[in-house]
Amino acid sequence: MLSKNTLKFIKSLQQKKFRKQEQLFFVEGGKNVTELLQSDYEVTQVLFTTQFGKDNSVLLNAIKAEIFEVSQSTLESVGSFQSNDSVLAVAKCKPNIPIGLASDEWAIALDDVKDPGNLGTIIRIADWYGIQKLFLSEESAEFYNPKVVNASMGSFSRIMFSYTDLKKLFEKSDLPIYGAYLEGKSIYDSKFGKGGIILMGNESNGISKELEPYVSHKITIPRFGHAESLNVAVATAIFCDNMKRNSI
Amino acid sequence: MLSKNTLKFIKSLQQKKFRKQEQLFFVEGGKNVTELLQSDYEVTQVLFTTQFGKDNSVLLNAIKAEIFEVSQSTLESVGSFQSNDSVLAVAKCKPNIPIGLASDEWAIALDDVKDPGNLGTIIRIADWYGIQKLFLSEESAEFYNPKVVNASMGSFSRIMFSYTDLKKLFEKSDLPIYGAYLEGKSIYDSKFGKGGIILMGNESNGISKELEPYVSHKITIPRFGHAESLNVAVATAIFCDNMKRNSI
Repeated sequence: MLSKNTLKFIKSLQQKKFRKQEQLFFVEGGKNVTELLQSDYEVTQVLFTTQFGKDNSVLLNAIKAEIFEVSQSTLESVGSFQSNDSVLAVAKCKPNIPIGLASDEWAIALDDVKDPGNLGTIIRIADWYGIQKLFLSEESAEFYNPKVVNASMGSFSRIMFSYTDLKKLFEKSDLPIYGAYLEGKSIYDSKFGKGGIILMGNESNGISKELEPYVSHKITIPRFGHAESLNVAVATAIFCDNMKRNSI
Repeated sequence: MLSKNTLKFIKSLQQKKFRKQEQLFFVEGGKNVTELLQSDYEVTQVLFTTQFGKDNSVLLNAIKAEIFEVSQSTLESVGSFQSNDSVLAVAKCKPNIPIGLASDEWAIALDDVKDPGNLGTIIRIADWYGIQKLFLSEESAEFYNPKVVNASMGSFSRIMFSYTDLKKLFEKSDLPIYGAYLEGKSIYDSKFGKGGIILMGNESNGISKELEPYVSHKITIPRFGHAESLNVAVATAIFCDNMKRNSI
């Protein structure tokens, strides 16, 4: 039986403070939750509608979590979606641990990317291009914010991430760092090696001054019109696409 | 003197119904409004804070619109921004008229792209890549929705657009149409000509069946990881980038 207290508890996970305290987060919608249930995340509760239960009985029977059949309005009252006719699941956050990077591997590093929608979209892009590791400055958006999870369209479950002091990380690394600048070498003329870090800066200020000395390749996406800049997720995608194109 | 009725009227432009009826829309924030004031849009009113007025006196003196110095809280009470310490302007919508396309020109066509943030981001991308023309199916998001205007970061003021029946448009056109499909020819192996139309589909369903026969080039962005798809604005950017790269 799903108690009012449990519902209240799940709803509290909309707030960062409670996610941090409880080390739990929630995931909404069929696409995101089915990806979650097939991942290595530890799921604690699943709330689902009759229809979702019928369509996903095998998946639901295979997991250890508490499962509750609920109404659509219950889902909408605890989650962040205005409309949710399928499912919401609660899972344990992964601990923030350092991650390594081999010399033939790619990672994305984000220097204070603040907008949760941008972070979620970048996670989806990384997953599309087969980049599994993400380094985040400590001021970047929070990985388990519902807007991040939603925008990632399930890809959050496949990405390794680490919040870290990027300056210290770069100091210790001898991997090439490809940074997005408005005044760099054209990406069309740039060679990407076998591995390295793609560094993207803050939405308003770009890459911070203190990280600039570590950028081994300053790269620009050529502009043909008049927009002042590109959205950071869009620029990340173009970097990944050019990196893959130039490496095949 | 700025009356309560005028404030109420501007606030009503948050709703599509009133934008359609009055053929007016509003623009918020310093970046978007300064671009608006330098465009060929007819601006009717500008509400600004003391600071914005000081920083932009030349621009404000040069326009014909009614101008009002207001408090930050007034700006926030009429507009869609939670926080706006600079400016909001009202301007006349442009009429929806057919636009032509020369054989050496590029345009983007959107088949029911519904999300205003996606449309705004696509407008910014088009403007970055020097694509000035946008064809929108009648079910696509509304160009003058505040979320579209905001996400465009001022680029809305430089893009020509037309809501039209895409099927009829394509029937009459002999330009190449490059459509984004999950199962097409790799974009890395595709040649783009001197002009044509880049066609992007709906967020959930892609390009509709009825438009498929008109697509002369079915093109895919290669996937290296596990995400099921890319966001439509991200995919548009990768198309534009590859088109420009292959044409220089």
